[in-house]
Amino acid sequence: MRSQSPGLTWSQIQEAHARIADKINLTPVLTSSTLDAASGARLYFECENFQKGGAFKARGACNAVFCLTDAEAARGVATHSSGNHAAALARAARLRGIAAHIVMPENTPQSKRAAVERYGAAITYCAPTLAAREQGAAAVIAATGATLVHPYDDLNVMAGQGTTGAELLTQVADLDLVLCPVGGGGLIAGVAVAARALKPGIRVVGVEPTGADDAARSFRAGKLFPSLKPDTVAEGLRGALGEKPFAEIRRYVDDIVTVPDTAIVAAMRRLWEVMKIVVEPSGAVSYAAIDAGRLDVQGKRVGVVLSGGNLDLEQLPWARGATPARG
Amino acid sequence: MRSQSPGLTWSQIQEAHARIADKINLTPVLTSSTLDAASGARLYFECENFQKGGAFKARGACNAVFCLTDAEAARGVATHSSGNHAAALARAARLRGIAAHIVMPENTPQSKRAAVERYGAAITYCAPTLAAREQGAAAVIAATGATLVHPYDDLNVMAGQGTTGAELLTQVADLDLVLCPVGGGGLIAGVAVAARALKPGIRVVGVEPTGADDAARSFRAGKLFPSLKPDTVAEGLRGALGEKPFAEIRRYVDDIVTVPDTAIVAAMRRLWEVMKIVVEPSGAVSYAAIDAGRLDVQGKRVGVVLSGGNLDLEQLPWARGATPARG
Repeated sequence: MRSQSPGLTWSQIQEAHARIADKINLTPVLTSSTLDAASGARLYFECENFQKGGAFKARGACNAVFCLTDAEAARGVATHSSGNHAAALARAARLRGIAAHIVMPENTPQSKRAAVERYGAAITYCAPTLAAREQGAAAVIAATGATLVHPYDDLNVMAGQGTTGAELLTQVADLDLVLCPVGGGGLIAGVAVAARALKPGIRVVGVEPTGADDAARSFRAGKLFPSLKPDTVAEGLRGALGEKPFAEIRRYVDDIVTVPDTAIVAAMRRLWEVMKIVVEPSGAVSYAAIDAGRLDVQGKRVGVVLSGGNLDLEQLPWARGATPARG
Repeated sequence: MRSQSPGLTWSQIQEAHARIADKINLTPVLTSSTLDAASGARLYFECENFQKGGAFKARGACNAVFCLTDAEAARGVATHSSGNHAAALARAARLRGIAAHIVMPENTPQSKRAAVERYGAAITYCAPTLAAREQGAAAVIAATGATLVHPYDDLNVMAGQGTTGAELLTQVADLDLVLCPVGGGGLIAGVAVAARALKPGIRVVGVEPTGADDAARSFRAGKLFPSLKPDTVAEGLRGALGEKPFAEIRRYVDDIVTVPDTAIVAAMRRLWEVMKIVVEPSGAVSYAAIDAGRLDVQGKRVGVVLSGGNLDLEQLPWARGATPARG
């Protein structure tokens, strides 16, 4: 048996909520009679695309930054991130009045770069590999003494992300099931701990792109597999599953299902068209599992976490590479 | 001399609200700290893109359909419309269980056609001119005995649209100013009557595309000018200003400003990017007046009516090579 990690507790999530409540949006839970009719379920969409900075990452970053001692804070924070966490950390650092050092893959979409620049963070670009990102962050930390705020493999970050689940379960009673995207695992880990604390019998299911299915494989095998050349339109979910989130996923998550990119794009488009909201591919994977019939939700009350809405509006995935029909 | 029209009253709007409240969405009023900072004002966005059918038109259509006597209703309803009113009338007719006959310009976007088809209405296509639309509707009415529900030149429709203003002023206290798109004028007429009833000192300003500025010209001249070859990306605002709405506009509206298509597209894009909501060009004109600096909102509390969110997602006006349809 492996030694038990201390793990994430419901109290930590409650403390995080008290700490960050005035720094984040209480995001609305939207419903759609059209999507209910199409799914046969009652769907409750937690709209983290309406969160500060356009993604749930504001929660974890704020909690981590405001957990620092004054001495730690004075040396700043650093991270490597595909974008949403970077912008969230830059914003949280500015709220506390400290420096943020961001190491970012050079293929990060322009809209996410701009979000980081806007908050005045210092950006270093690196090759789009996990190794290059970690190396870049280590170099920045060695030079500045900044505290690393990992995008997901960090209990303070996970506790912050867990407030998403706390708000969803507080706003909507009697959910049978919560669906949540899985990338590094910080969001679903926090959501699962919160959901189980507030409604012990609830099911929590993760959804992952088929092209970045390290969490699904790890979940089934019961041990952490590395992420192998992730290839998915959901660029926010290309990161490798973290050890600390994986421990909570094993404890509290009931299943992890996968959806192909075609289903992610179709689901995203449907959310835009029917609900009139802008959701990024990573944000739409949870609904994609329903839209693509990947799990049985008939007659159920389902919480669907839409995790973010940041993307380049010129680069919509349903236009990319397609030759428009000529009439 | 023309006799004075009886006009739209606040009581009619209140009665409309009681009649349709269970058939429409109470749409949320959203705010954005980013857009507040950019404008120097406090902006309250009434999101009619989240209305049933994706536009405010659900309100007026429901009110008109549920005002009919049973004998009238049995013969069905008919209209000519560029889309949102058509879908709204089709939906209202289905709610009452009666027939809807829709005459629609042949250049109507596919998404709006699909919305009408979905509710089971009978569609006739016509040339994209007002004359062809009116002629088509007259023929349908002669054949069926259906009641014409004009998209805007109809007091019951205007009373329904006015519930938008009633909800905005009820949700947000102490607005200084309300901005509203102007096409046929039904929405702004209703909103102005409601706003002035609920807060007598409020300013109500209409916003119109430069390429379809018949309301602005009529307002300044004090007499109704015809719409001359409207040319704007905001296809929902190409209709000619109606006589009945114009009477209310003269009584209650303080000004009508115009914005060029470039400003409309830029404003629409900014709403998508910052607020993560899908707004159609016609829906974004009210915010375009602020974004383009067309009026002074500094320090004010401003209600901004976003009237709808229906458009073809393949034909985004900022996409390379996109050629918006012209009416």
